[in-house]
Amino acid sequence: MSDINDTHDPGLRSWVASANEEGTDFPIQNLPHGVFRRTGSAEPWRGGVAIGDQVLDVGALHAAGAFSRFGPIAEQAAALASADELNGLMAAGPAAWKALRTALSALLREGQPAQPDALVSQADAEYRVPARVGDFTDFYTSVHHATNIGRLFRPDAPLMPNFKWLPVAYHGRASSIGISGQTFHRPRGQTLPAGATAPTFGACQRLDYELELGIWIGQGNAPGEPIPIAEADDHVFGLCLLNDWSARDIQAWEYQPLGPFLAKNFATTISPWIVTLQALAPYRVAWTRPDGDPAPLPYLDCAHNRTHGAFDVRIECWLESQSMRDGGSGPSRLSSSSFRHSYWSVAQMVTHHAVGGCNLQPGDLLGTGTQSGPTPGEAAALIELSVGGQQPVALDNGETRTFLADGDTVIFKGWCEKPRFARIGFGEARGTVLPAR
Amino acid sequence: MSDINDTHDPGLRSWVASANEEGTDFPIQNLPHGVFRRTGSAEPWRGGVAIGDQVLDVGALHAAGAFSRFGPIAEQAAALASADELNGLMAAGPAAWKALRTALSALLREGQPAQPDALVSQADAEYRVPARVGDFTDFYTSVHHATNIGRLFRPDAPLMPNFKWLPVAYHGRASSIGISGQTFHRPRGQTLPAGATAPTFGACQRLDYELELGIWIGQGNAPGEPIPIAEADDHVFGLCLLNDWSARDIQAWEYQPLGPFLAKNFATTISPWIVTLQALAPYRVAWTRPDGDPAPLPYLDCAHNRTHGAFDVRIECWLESQSMRDGGSGPSRLSSSSFRHSYWSVAQMVTHHAVGGCNLQPGDLLGTGTQSGPTPGEAAALIELSVGGQQPVALDNGETRTFLADGDTVIFKGWCEKPRFARIGFGEARGTVLPAR
Repeated sequence: MSDINDTHDPGLRSWVASANEEGTDFPIQNLPHGVFRRTGSAEPWRGGVAIGDQVLDVGALHAAGAFSRFGPIAEQAAALASADELNGLMAAGPAAWKALRTALSALLREGQPAQPDALVSQADAEYRVPARVGDFTDFYTSVHHATNIGRLFRPDAPLMPNFKWLPVAYHGRASSIGISGQTFHRPRGQTLPAGATAPTFGACQRLDYELELGIWIGQGNAPGEPIPIAEADDHVFGLCLLNDWSARDIQAWEYQPLGPFLAKNFATTISPWIVTLQALAPYRVAWTRPDGDPAPLPYLDCAHNRTHGAFDVRIECWLESQSMRDGGSGPSRLSSSSFRHSYWSVAQMVTHHAVGGCNLQPGDLLGTGTQSGPTPGEAAALIELSVGGQQPVALDNGETRTFLADGDTVIFKGWCEKPRFARIGFGEARGTVLPAR
Repeated sequence: MSDINDTHDPGLRSWVASANEEGTDFPIQNLPHGVFRRTGSAEPWRGGVAIGDQVLDVGALHAAGAFSRFGPIAEQAAALASADELNGLMAAGPAAWKALRTALSALLREGQPAQPDALVSQADAEYRVPARVGDFTDFYTSVHHATNIGRLFRPDAPLMPNFKWLPVAYHGRASSIGISGQTFHRPRGQTLPAGATAPTFGACQRLDYELELGIWIGQGNAPGEPIPIAEADDHVFGLCLLNDWSARDIQAWEYQPLGPFLAKNFATTISPWIVTLQALAPYRVAWTRPDGDPAPLPYLDCAHNRTHGAFDVRIECWLESQSMRDGGSGPSRLSSSSFRHSYWSVAQMVTHHAVGGCNLQPGDLLGTGTQSGPTPGEAAALIELSVGGQQPVALDNGETRTFLADGDTVIFKGWCEKPRFARIGFGEARGTVLPAR
């Protein structure tokens, strides 16, 4: 799964000219999957692959027989990749994913016949959640986030005793997952005003984002069958960006003893493109722990996880306020970090999820938890950047924020880059807060 | 929705003779929906209605044109009720549900032509989860359960301050919901031994059941659109029995700060038949609170909820051990109570769930939380009956239990009865613990 092969060759160029431009998220070395149609059209939703500023309509190429020369595994995978939801492709497993990547890379290379009829401009496309999400699980894997949050409530002991032993997680809400561009009304709910003994009902006053990655499950496991950590990567189709919008004041009142509920289930926004584990192979790095921290229990440990468990995905959060849009200024960057700082790896999350017998299914989505890095500028939520709302965060246009205002658009970006490899990107996950109803 | 009409007439009899027998769960006044086929066959799964000891194959009657005389709404509902999953019927809404009930009641009455070809004996049938569950949510609505559990951890303040203000809930796992007859391996996981500072990994030692009802959502709501409490019943298709199997020792270690995860997601067992809100109309009772408790906030209060919010569903838990099966003795009853004691009503759970903007969808399943009643014999989980494992519970054959043993089958039963109305039942939800892998 972590093999680097000629599809990662940084010298590869595509007949789609925009894929060869400096700074594109979608060079031929990336080839992420999504589900699209022309914006506002009555066209059927169908699977596509991002290439430069275009979407490759995989089904159009498939119908023209373009995949037949790559063998039945690749051809079948191409059919699954052109469906209106990608659960079938996810279920097909790594051999199919690799065969499809090899075929797509070959078909899109410079020198191959251009297929302009199989392209739709991304400027003309809209997207939807690319698979039927059976279950959504959200983890809590950044020790920096957990410490920053915990310090607000328990200055002397910010981390729970279990944090360094298991990847903490809770079940989330699948129905309210939306695609980049999602808008939602500021939630209303019960909160307990400071010093009060009875709650009040009204609009959330401490609305926040959480910058996470999403993990798309590929092959599932049967009920009761664990997933050994050495095999966990084979169960992961790819990654996306994920905004776990959070109503902090609603959560503070509701969450004991069973965890967040209405504070988290009104909206979750993901980026449309799934960057496959194959595409991410060059950007895997060692998974390590600070000296003195406990070693993972054996079921969460293997050699491959130690050498390749982490992903160096650079992540950024930007905020665009209504004033910025009105004034024509661009968005303001709030933070920048990398997923490599995660205390727990993707493989550990997958293996832990299944170890008690829970069955994962193709299209299940796992959130990694807020990916705050080690320094203050790497905090991936406003509650951390503003120290619990005590220190307003300055935006580029002179505005400040402790929590989100109506009209705010939050924009996540993600990409990978390193010497001697092509930069590949995730596109964006953006969402906008509408006023409470 | 709570109307009592001639389909509830206790004098009604069916041409299915077993439906007229004393003590049947499925007289003609009930008419619950499920999805079935002949056991072990390659027949398609299809919707059915329980009648006496038979399953009515709704699609067979529909194909014979039996519903045409009841009008297009009833005929369309009958088609939806014969599908291989009932999400479409659930989405059709109360007018369709009522029209279908009226038609089924008329067609099955004594004096109407018998349709033996449209019957399959329940002894020959197997069932599956009757709808695609998009999301599963589990509530925590019994003040007696919350107090019993809380007392084990916080003797002086067993109830959390939010308990009497909102129906506490968390998101659960949909993929591992199974139908009555489900077996599962005792989960393994991390636990923290008493006095230890580091966890160990192994088989759960404190495996428990939780006796709940399941609430099947009918019509959903759009994202951001709340469900007014006066309309909440229109969004509920019906109820079933639900076992929220729980690994207490795994939960104790993992659940801070985000709630239960592996402790709950290895299995959830439901009964195959959905008893509709129409069938339950005669058994609705006033929803009240003890004097001195806070009144519900306005969004959780309406006249209909006060007069009809609660359901008097009698619930029982039985345990059948391997020794009982080997020795030929019957199961031993562990508890008996009623859902009428729930601190929060079905309508309040539905309305609270949607108030922040979360969209419910047809086929979503809500667990009511463990329905322990006010007295010790009404405790609906072993952790309560055994006072946290301190006082072993005696079974009829001389065995004792603090928590579940391998081979134990837990059996839930539910029914409604009152003078001048027919007794209607829920059937069973049974599940069996297999040894850890």
